Amino acid sequence: MSVGINRYKADLRELCFVLFEQFGFSEYAGKGCYEGWDEATAKAILEETYRIAREVLGPLNSVGDREGCKVVDGRVKTPKGFADAWKQLFEAGVKQIAVRKEFGGQGGPYSLYALIEELTSGANTAFNMYPGLAWGAAEVIAEFGTEAQKKLFCQRMFTGQWGGTMCLTEPNAGSDVGSAVTKAVKQADGRYKLSGTKIFISGGDHDLAENIVHLVLARAEGAPAGTKGLSLFIVPRVRVDASGKLGELNDVQVASLEHKMGINGSATCVMNFGESGECYGELVGAAENQGLPQMFRMMNGARIAVGIQGLAVTSSAYLNALEYAKDRKQGAPFKQWKDPSVPRVAILEHPDVRRMLLELKAHVEGIRALVVKLAVHRDHYHVLAGRDDDQAAYHQGQVDLLTPLVKAYASEEAWRLCGQAIQIFGGAGFLKDWPVEQYARDSKIFSIYEGTTHIQSMDLVGRKLGQSGGANFTAFIGDINGFVEANKSHPVLGKDVERLSGAAEAFMQVAMGLMGWAQGGKVELVPLNGNRVLTMMSQLSVAWLLLDAGVKAEAALSKLPAGHADRAFYEGKRYSAQWFARNVLPNVEHLAKLAMIEDASPVEISDAAFAS
Amino acid sequence: MSVGINRYKADLRELCFVLFEQFGFSEYAGKGCYEGWDEATAKAILEETYRIAREVLGPLNSVGDREGCKVVDGRVKTPKGFADAWKQLFEAGVKQIAVRKEFGGQGGPYSLYALIEELTSGANTAFNMYPGLAWGAAEVIAEFGTEAQKKLFCQRMFTGQWGGTMCLTEPNAGSDVGSAVTKAVKQADGRYKLSGTKIFISGGDHDLAENIVHLVLARAEGAPAGTKGLSLFIVPRVRVDASGKLGELNDVQVASLEHKMGINGSATCVMNFGESGECYGELVGAAENQGLPQMFRMMNGARIAVGIQGLAVTSSAYLNALEYAKDRKQGAPFKQWKDPSVPRVAILEHPDVRRMLLELKAHVEGIRALVVKLAVHRDHYHVLAGRDDDQAAYHQGQVDLLTPLVKAYASEEAWRLCGQAIQIFGGAGFLKDWPVEQYARDSKIFSIYEGTTHIQSMDLVGRKLGQSGGANFTAFIGDINGFVEANKSHPVLGKDVERLSGAAEAFMQVAMGLMGWAQGGKVELVPLNGNRVLTMMSQLSVAWLLLDAGVKAEAALSKLPAGHADRAFYEGKRYSAQWFARNVLPNVEHLAKLAMIEDASPVEISDAAFAS
Repeated sequence: MSVGINRYKADLRELCFVLFEQFGFSEYAGKGCYEGWDEATAKAILEETYRIAREVLGPLNSVGDREGCKVVDGRVKTPKGFADAWKQLFEAGVKQIAVRKEFGGQGGPYSLYALIEELTSGANTAFNMYPGLAWGAAEVIAEFGTEAQKKLFCQRMFTGQWGGTMCLTEPNAGSDVGSAVTKAVKQADGRYKLSGTKIFISGGDHDLAENIVHLVLARAEGAPAGTKGLSLFIVPRVRVDASGKLGELNDVQVASLEHKMGINGSATCVMNFGESGECYGELVGAAENQGLPQMFRMMNGARIAVGIQGLAVTSSAYLNALEYAKDRKQGAPFKQWKDPSVPRVAILEHPDVRRMLLELKAHVEGIRALVVKLAVHRDHYHVLAGRDDDQAAYHQGQVDLLTPLVKAYASEEAWRLCGQAIQIFGGAGFLKDWPVEQYARDSKIFSIYEGTTHIQSMDLVGRKLGQSGGANFTAFIGDINGFVEANKSHPVLGKDVERLSGAAEAFMQVAMGLMGWAQGGKVELVPLNGNRVLTMMSQLSVAWLLLDAGVKAEAALSKLPAGHADRAFYEGKRYSAQWFARNVLPNVEHLAKLAMIEDASPVEISDAAFAS
Repeated sequence: MSVGINRYKADLRELCFVLFEQFGFSEYAGKGCYEGWDEATAKAILEETYRIAREVLGPLNSVGDREGCKVVDGRVKTPKGFADAWKQLFEAGVKQIAVRKEFGGQGGPYSLYALIEELTSGANTAFNMYPGLAWGAAEVIAEFGTEAQKKLFCQRMFTGQWGGTMCLTEPNAGSDVGSAVTKAVKQADGRYKLSGTKIFISGGDHDLAENIVHLVLARAEGAPAGTKGLSLFIVPRVRVDASGKLGELNDVQVASLEHKMGINGSATCVMNFGESGECYGELVGAAENQGLPQMFRMMNGARIAVGIQGLAVTSSAYLNALEYAKDRKQGAPFKQWKDPSVPRVAILEHPDVRRMLLELKAHVEGIRALVVKLAVHRDHYHVLAGRDDDQAAYHQGQVDLLTPLVKAYASEEAWRLCGQAIQIFGGAGFLKDWPVEQYARDSKIFSIYEGTTHIQSMDLVGRKLGQSGGANFTAFIGDINGFVEANKSHPVLGKDVERLSGAAEAFMQVAMGLMGWAQGGKVELVPLNGNRVLTMMSQLSVAWLLLDAGVKAEAALSKLPAGHADRAFYEGKRYSAQWFARNVLPNVEHLAKLAMIEDASPVEISDAAFAS
C-alpha cells in the first residue's frame, strides 16, 4: 500500500497557462491593491507550494485515510504527522498569500490563492480542511467583526496560531439552516451564554493549534423564527483575554466523531456547546440577527473552496491515471488485437483509454479555467472597486453567478471522473495501492456539504440568474456571444466555436422558460429542472473557456518553431477544446429538449407508488 | 455504526411482478425440463431466500466490510459469521434451485435463480461471491468435464461441500488474457504439473468449505501462443481420490491479500501454484487448448452475475434512500420554502428528492427487467432446445446479445446511482451508519472485473451485433418495433411508446455506421464509440421493457377496483416508464448525433500533448 508515499501530481505548466496566458494575470497584478505582484513572483510561489504539497502534505494523504482521527481524553487526536505539516505549511507562508497585510498576509491576488488552494487540497484533501476552515472563519471576522475582534482573532487565525471552525448544522437543521435551535442568552457583561448541539463540524476539535475559534450560528433570546433570527457568535475553545492570552477552557465538548466513507483525516465532530451551562461567546460585530448574511460570506468562500477540492483530486486522479497508462503494458495495438506475436503495448495506446484520459483532461482543464475565471473576476473587482463602479459591479456579478457552478459542477464531476480514473487503472484502481480509490471516496462529500448540488441549483435559478435585474446573466451571455463573434472563423477551432451559439441559445430559452413555469402555474418544473439548468450553464461555460484557451494556445503555437518543447502542451489545449465541444457541449441543447418536455412525473407519482 | 444489523431491503412484490406478470413465468415453468414448477413454488422460494438474505446474510454485510479477510498461518480467515452463513445458505437449498437434479439441485428455471441471486448478492455482495464462484466453476465442469470429473466434483461444489474459484488473471494478463504464462506440463500418469502466479483471485482461499477446487487457465507445454494455446485445469487445494476422499495438500499457496476500496469480505488473493514443483491438476475434459471456450462458458455466467450484483445493491440503495426520505424531516414544503412557521416535512416531499428517487426506481426496475428478460430467454431456450430449433436459436441469440448490456450497463449505473442514493441521504449518506456508502464502494469493481465495460462494448459491437449474420440483432429490433406497433395508441403510454421509434432508428443508424467505419478507413471510431453504442442499446432496451411493464400494469390496473391495495404499485410502473421515456430514452438519439460527428480527437492527440 502507498501509505506515507506522495502520490499527488500537478501540472504547473498548465496552472501557469491558465493564470498567466489565458486570463492575463499581469492585467491586474501590479495594479491597485495588487501593486508589487508579477508573474515571476506568482510562479515562484506556485513552485514552492507544489514542493510543500509533494513533500509535506502528499505523503500524509494515505496516512490520514488509514489512521483517521480519534478522541483521546476528550480531545481529537489527528493522524500522525498532521501537526508538523500544519506548522510547516504556515511557516512557508503560502496560505497567507491572499491575506491582507494588516493580518500578517501578503495581500496577493485571490486567483493565485485559488491555485495554491488547488495544490494543497489536492495533495491532502482532509488535512487541508483544517487550515481552510480557519481561513474561512477568520475572513468572516475580518469582514464583520468589531475592530477589537479583528485585532484579537484575525492574524492569529490567518497565520495558524489558532484554528477555526464554522458550526452551522444541527441534527434537525442541515439544508434547512433556519431551523437551528442553538440558543444564545445575553449576559449582563454583553457576552452570550450558548447552549446547543452542532453536527458535521469539520475540525471541531484538533491538536494542530493552541486554540480553536468556533463561529457558532445560534438564535439570541427573543429573536424571530427562521433564518432572520440567526446570529453568529465567536466561541473560542480556550477563553482568551483582550491581549490574546489563553485562559480557562470554555464549555465546548466533542461528543463524538463520525465514521465516514472518506476524508478520514478530517475530524467530523458532534459538538456540544454549554452542556455545563458555561459556554461563553461574543456576537460577531455589534448587531444581532445578522447571522445569515455573515454566514453567506463564509459560505461563498467555502463553496468555491469545495469546487476547488473537486478540481484538485480530479486533476491528480487524471495525472496518476495518465502515468499508469504510460507504464502499464497490456494487450496488442487495437488494429492487431488478436495477434499474439505482436509486442504488448502501453494501455495509453488503446483508443478507449485515450478517450477516457482526454475526457478527464478536458474536464479538469475546463473546470480549472472556470475556477480561475471566477477568481480573476474577484481580483478585478478588488482592483476596480471605488475606481470604476460599473466595471467592479460587472466583475462581482460574475463571481456571484459562477459560484454555484464551481461548487456543484466541480463536485459532481469529481465523483464521476474519479470513478473513471479508477476504470483506467482497471483492477489496480480498486486497490489501496493506488491513490484513485481514495480520491473517489473523499470526493463524494463535495456535492453535499456547504450546500448540496440542488441547493446550488436553486441558488442559481432562484437568485443568481435574476440578480441585478438579470444584468449579470446578460453580461455572461454577452461575453460568450462576443467570443463567438470574434472567433467563429478561426482556422482551427472556428467550427467548434460555432457550436457555442446553439448551446447558448438553448440555455437562454430554458432560463427564460423557468420564469414562464414559475408564473404559469408549473412552479414544480423549476426544482425538477434546477440541476439540469446548472449542468447546462456549467457545460456551456466550460466549453467556452476551453475554446478560449484553445484559441490562445493556437496563437502561441503559431509563434513557436517546429520542434519547440512547448508545442505539445499547446496542441493538447486544442484537443481538450475540440473534444469537449464535440462530445459534451451538444448536451446543452439535448438537456434543453428534455426540459421542454415538461415532465412532472416525480411530483405526480404518489408516495405510495414508490414501492410496495 | 450499523455493524451486524441488516440493512438489506428488497421489494418482493416487484420481483414477482417482473417474473410472473411481465415475463410470463407460467409460459415456460411447468413445461419440458421445467416440469413441476409453478408460480406458487417460485414465490415461496423467493420469500424464503429473502428471509435468509435479511436474517443471515444482511447482518454480515457491514461486518465483512469492517473486518475484512486475513491470512493466518497461510490460510485465509473470512469475517466472523461467514462460515456459519455458508452452512445455512446451502442447507436452505436456495443456491441449488437451478442446479440440475443429477448434481443435487432442483432443476429449476434460471430466471427464478437470477432473482435468488439478486437477493443473496444484494444482502451481502462480498459473501455471495464465494458460493457464486463455486457455482460458476462447477458449471464449467458440468458442461465440459469428463464423466468422472462431473461425478467427483459437481455435486460437492454445487452443494457447498467444496468451494471453487476461477484463476485467470496474471500480473501481465488481465484484459489481455491470451498473454497468460502459467505453465502446465503433462506427466506420465496423464496429470499436469502447474506452475505460475495468478492475481485478483476472488475467494482464492477461505475457511468456508473442506476443499476448494481451482479452475486454472494455463498453457500446456508446446501449446501455441495467445488465446488459442490456453487450457483449463482442475486444481484442488486438497488432493482427492476418485471417491472424493481428501488426501494431501496440493502445492497451492495464498501469497497475499489485496486491500481494496470495497467487497472487503471477499478475499482477493494473489495465488502461487507449484512454488515447490508439486502442484498437480487435471485437464477439464479430454483435449488441450480448449481453455478459451470453456472459460467463456464460465465468463458469460459470471458476467450476468456481475450485472445482477449491480442491480442488487442499487435496488437496496434505492429502497434505503426511500425509507430515509420518508423518515427524515427537513425544510418546509417547496412552495412555502421561506416560511419558518410552516411545519417541517419529510424530504420525500421535496421535488428534487422525488426526482432522484424516481430516477433510481426507474433504473432499478428497468435493469431488473433486462436481467430477467435475458434469463427468461435462457429458460425458453432450454425448454425449446431439441423441439423447436429456430425458436431455441432465437432465444439463445437474445441471451448472447443482452449479456454485455446486463454486465456493463448495470455495473456502470450502480456506481452512478449508489452515488445518487448517498446524495438523497445528504451528509448521513457519507457516514458508515448507513449502508449506501458501502454499496457505492463495493460497486466500483463491477465495471472492471469479468471484462471491463469497454470489453463488453467490444463484445457487443465486434461480435454480438453481427452474430448469426445479424439475425439476433434484427430479431431484437423486430421485437421493439412489434411492441411499438401494438402499443403506440395506448391511451396512457402511447406517446411515450412512440418515443421508442426514433431511438430504435437512431441506434440502428449508428450500428450500421460502425460497419461503414470499420470498412471505410475509420476503424478507430469503432472503439471510440463502443461504450456509447452499448449505452444506447441499454437505454433503448430498458425504456422498451419499462414501457412493456407499464402497459401490462395499466391492464392490471383497469381490472382493479378503486381503493385496491395494489393500485399504487401498478401506478408506480406507469411513472417509471414515462419518466425513463421522457428523461433518458431521448439520450439515445442524442448519442447518435454525437457519434455522427465522428470526432477522433482521442487518437489524434499525441502522447506528449496529454500533459507537460
